[in-house]
Amino acid sequence: MSDIEIAQQAKMKPIIDLAREQFGIDAEHLDPYGHYKAKLSLDYVGSLADKPDGKLILVTAISPTPAGEGKTTTSVGLGDALNRIGKKTIMCLREPSLGPCFGVKGGAAGGGHAQVVPMEDINLHFTGDFHAIGVAHNLLSALIDNHINHGNALGIDPRRIQWKRVVDMNDRALRHIVVGMGGPANGYLREDGYDIVVASEVMAILCLATSRADLKERLGRIVIGYKTDNKTPVYARDLNAHGAMAALLKDAIKPNLVQTLENNIAFIHGGPFANIAHGCNTVTATQTALKLADYVITEAGFGADLGAEKFVDIKCRMAGLKPSAAVLVATVRALKFHGGVAKEELNQENLSALDKGFANLERHYRNITEHYGLPCVICINHFTFDTEAELDLLQGKCRTLGAVCIISKHWAEGGKGAEQLAHAVAETADHHHDGCRFVYDDHLSLWEKIETIATKLYGAANVTATAKVKAQLAAWNAEYGHFPICMAKTQMSFSTDATVKGAPSGHTVEIREVRLANGAGFIVAIAGDIMTMPGLPKVPAAEKIDIDENGRISGLF
Amino acid sequence: MSDIEIAQQAKMKPIIDLAREQFGIDAEHLDPYGHYKAKLSLDYVGSLADKPDGKLILVTAISPTPAGEGKTTTSVGLGDALNRIGKKTIMCLREPSLGPCFGVKGGAAGGGHAQVVPMEDINLHFTGDFHAIGVAHNLLSALIDNHINHGNALGIDPRRIQWKRVVDMNDRALRHIVVGMGGPANGYLREDGYDIVVASEVMAILCLATSRADLKERLGRIVIGYKTDNKTPVYARDLNAHGAMAALLKDAIKPNLVQTLENNIAFIHGGPFANIAHGCNTVTATQTALKLADYVITEAGFGADLGAEKFVDIKCRMAGLKPSAAVLVATVRALKFHGGVAKEELNQENLSALDKGFANLERHYRNITEHYGLPCVICINHFTFDTEAELDLLQGKCRTLGAVCIISKHWAEGGKGAEQLAHAVAETADHHHDGCRFVYDDHLSLWEKIETIATKLYGAANVTATAKVKAQLAAWNAEYGHFPICMAKTQMSFSTDATVKGAPSGHTVEIREVRLANGAGFIVAIAGDIMTMPGLPKVPAAEKIDIDENGRISGLF
Repeated sequence: MSDIEIAQQAKMKPIIDLAREQFGIDAEHLDPYGHYKAKLSLDYVGSLADKPDGKLILVTAISPTPAGEGKTTTSVGLGDALNRIGKKTIMCLREPSLGPCFGVKGGAAGGGHAQVVPMEDINLHFTGDFHAIGVAHNLLSALIDNHINHGNALGIDPRRIQWKRVVDMNDRALRHIVVGMGGPANGYLREDGYDIVVASEVMAILCLATSRADLKERLGRIVIGYKTDNKTPVYARDLNAHGAMAALLKDAIKPNLVQTLENNIAFIHGGPFANIAHGCNTVTATQTALKLADYVITEAGFGADLGAEKFVDIKCRMAGLKPSAAVLVATVRALKFHGGVAKEELNQENLSALDKGFANLERHYRNITEHYGLPCVICINHFTFDTEAELDLLQGKCRTLGAVCIISKHWAEGGKGAEQLAHAVAETADHHHDGCRFVYDDHLSLWEKIETIATKLYGAANVTATAKVKAQLAAWNAEYGHFPICMAKTQMSFSTDATVKGAPSGHTVEIREVRLANGAGFIVAIAGDIMTMPGLPKVPAAEKIDIDENGRISGLF
Repeated sequence: MSDIEIAQQAKMKPIIDLAREQFGIDAEHLDPYGHYKAKLSLDYVGSLADKPDGKLILVTAISPTPAGEGKTTTSVGLGDALNRIGKKTIMCLREPSLGPCFGVKGGAAGGGHAQVVPMEDINLHFTGDFHAIGVAHNLLSALIDNHINHGNALGIDPRRIQWKRVVDMNDRALRHIVVGMGGPANGYLREDGYDIVVASEVMAILCLATSRADLKERLGRIVIGYKTDNKTPVYARDLNAHGAMAALLKDAIKPNLVQTLENNIAFIHGGPFANIAHGCNTVTATQTALKLADYVITEAGFGADLGAEKFVDIKCRMAGLKPSAAVLVATVRALKFHGGVAKEELNQENLSALDKGFANLERHYRNITEHYGLPCVICINHFTFDTEAELDLLQGKCRTLGAVCIISKHWAEGGKGAEQLAHAVAETADHHHDGCRFVYDDHLSLWEKIETIATKLYGAANVTATAKVKAQLAAWNAEYGHFPICMAKTQMSFSTDATVKGAPSGHTVEIREVRLANGAGFIVAIAGDIMTMPGLPKVPAAEKIDIDENGRISGLF
């Protein structure tokens, strides 16, 4: 059965009933969106402030293959399993982006018997958060060009506008465009471009904001570009844009509740890219879940070099979160891939490649335990074609690291298949004095922060950048020196070259561009090519997506 | 008090309770969106098929001033009044577009004490229908460029793509753009442009579709452009786009229920532009309301020369609707405007201008009664600065037409202020043998249809077009000759010149362009300039829109 077929057979409970049953949340605090999705009121969120926090557990992964190694699936399976063994647990996940559903990847609501439902809704429009973010972003874009059209009183340099437009679609033709053509009625001609909604700074802001006031303040301080003096920043608040933008995010700021196939509550809220942004669900959802549950499972995008690092250095640092453990998801497939096996041959046993590819897992494990200061359980997300010999080898190698390694079958069996993992994770978290280590200190210069990340975590020998990039960072040190770094790098490799597998060392990380995300509160350092607007493949998944006369969707996976 | 302040003081009832109370709709048939909005299931809609229809009443208007003459306000006030006098009534309104909220016009959920609520939600994202339409449209756009990028097997002529992109924003810089810049990875360079979402053919399709199957079929037959032979159309179904587009519209196809300030149910569903499209709410909502209520009040965009004509010739013709009466909304202000008074002086008494401007009302009234075959009640939407002398003059002139003319105070007093109007409308509708006349017959050629509209309704002496336009229409006659015409013309005048007030005669209507809307099932004839992407004014309304820490929105009007 496909994921969507399994999801459509789920016996969902009305979400209002479930929230009351499991966490005593009264219906008045929930805005239903249909019968199986709801938003939690911020008043209720605020009322929990004095409650003690549960244990926060991060699910992260090795450097992934293009298909991903199952972080969401594992988060859901682990959460269901913890609930099965009597540990009150909530999962905090990221909202999927619409665009990729029509491309290669399909949906992002877990897989097999470890999914969140209603799957179609979660993958399509869900509760409209991404649409609201897109419109808030594009309102600011429209106000910029409109301001210039009506006389440009602020003196915005049209050549130095860094605020692009966004759409939740994989659409390469929009990456680089010219706007304002067609004569005076259409404004001034200038170069522009589109990013996908998950790459919007508004997304990052929503995910880091701690209140409506903080949200509006952050929106107001977005830097959209520079004045013609080439140094004075122009802020969204200079255009009086932030009030209307915050109004558009009125409901998007409220955490979304859904359920797993096993009727456990999950929060799905926010979904920033893990390259240009920090790749974690909202602080609001995580903090709320910690007040309600004894264990909270959360995930961060891409591998542990990207998502987990930003979870620690950006999200935990800004929000004062104190995680208790990490789960490092690996697959035999991906480790063989890191050992040099071609994509087409990953389903065949290959012990020597597995042995070789293990280096990738080891580097991530050491980063998590030594640099992030988190105890770590290794989860082998089981695939049906994994052989006994491969699994034995992998477990043996994990033992040499002193690591707990669990083979988990949640994809095939749901929470039941992840019970062993749940016991290991709960025990690990319970024995940890809550909190993590930051990879770098606040007081380091921006350049030193980048160097620290690249050398400590990526195994790089050195970091390079053009004089222009270095000068820009140096100039920012005065005002933004305390900001954390948001590294944008390929997720496929510790290096900046996606084709370099395993655990490369001694390489050079070249920082090609730096960007100020003043509203989010971080500096984006771009190493190599990163994609802020994906394209569609030759045969897009959209061609197979369909709906019948009864409203039943197929082809979404 | 501003509209939003009145709306925020409304004592709303939970929409689920209200739907059960007033129309016996069980909760299982409703998908709640928060506590005060809901979508009605199509199963329930289908279950009503055998019930008798209520009376359908169209609210239309004279040629409006830029502020509009209060069609929505009158529809709501009249609906509330009919319910007050014991006539079971539902209002069917159009969803407001987000873009204009941030420009000049503000919201579009009625005004004063005749509003639908929750006003902020209805004006901002509502139930996400427009977002879904926008994404469905833009998915097709992305699939077109993606197809060309991957080899263009269909042989699409990139210079003859007529399917643009859309955004629900007033953004003049996007009217005319170049996409695909930046090298081979970004596809092929071509000219493109953005329309506002309400101008999307997907919007028109959703509003005319009678089932999920019909929706998908219509989406599939959208013509996106032509092959390099310059004659073979390329359909959305050639790109296998229609299944995924229909899936994206899974919920958008379901009618939305909200309530008025006086707790009467209103359907707000669909909102196509009244120029490039037909300007009426969905057929589904109207048909459903007719099964539930004894009277259904619906509105059509712009004046009676545009919205009402298309209501009759497109919506009623396609859906087999049989309206029973029309309400022609006029204001003393607008009639003085048609009599030549400058915008700044409209609040001062001017009887001679009113007398002169009456010609506009008279033309619309005659069109409605003689050409649409509908009995018509004239409603003077009362403004506080209307003088007794003006109102007396106006009523006297209406009597010379043999018309019922009611001065209605719903803006100030809600349903109570429109009771006299309600009695007149109910009586008029009750005495009419249901049904309307079409302005032209199906069997006329496309050109003859255009001529008929322009000469019969607009008072034009003749219609002109370039040889190219005429040849295009002639070529379409074979396959699409049975399609109705969707006239796109300024709403400010019977002529194609927005500055010509009153009731001009003997003028020439120049058809500058014709477009095939094959999915919607009509031919768009564009006379003069029409705007499919509005711009923002020098000081956009967005600058005043704000939200406080408790989530209370201000500045939306």
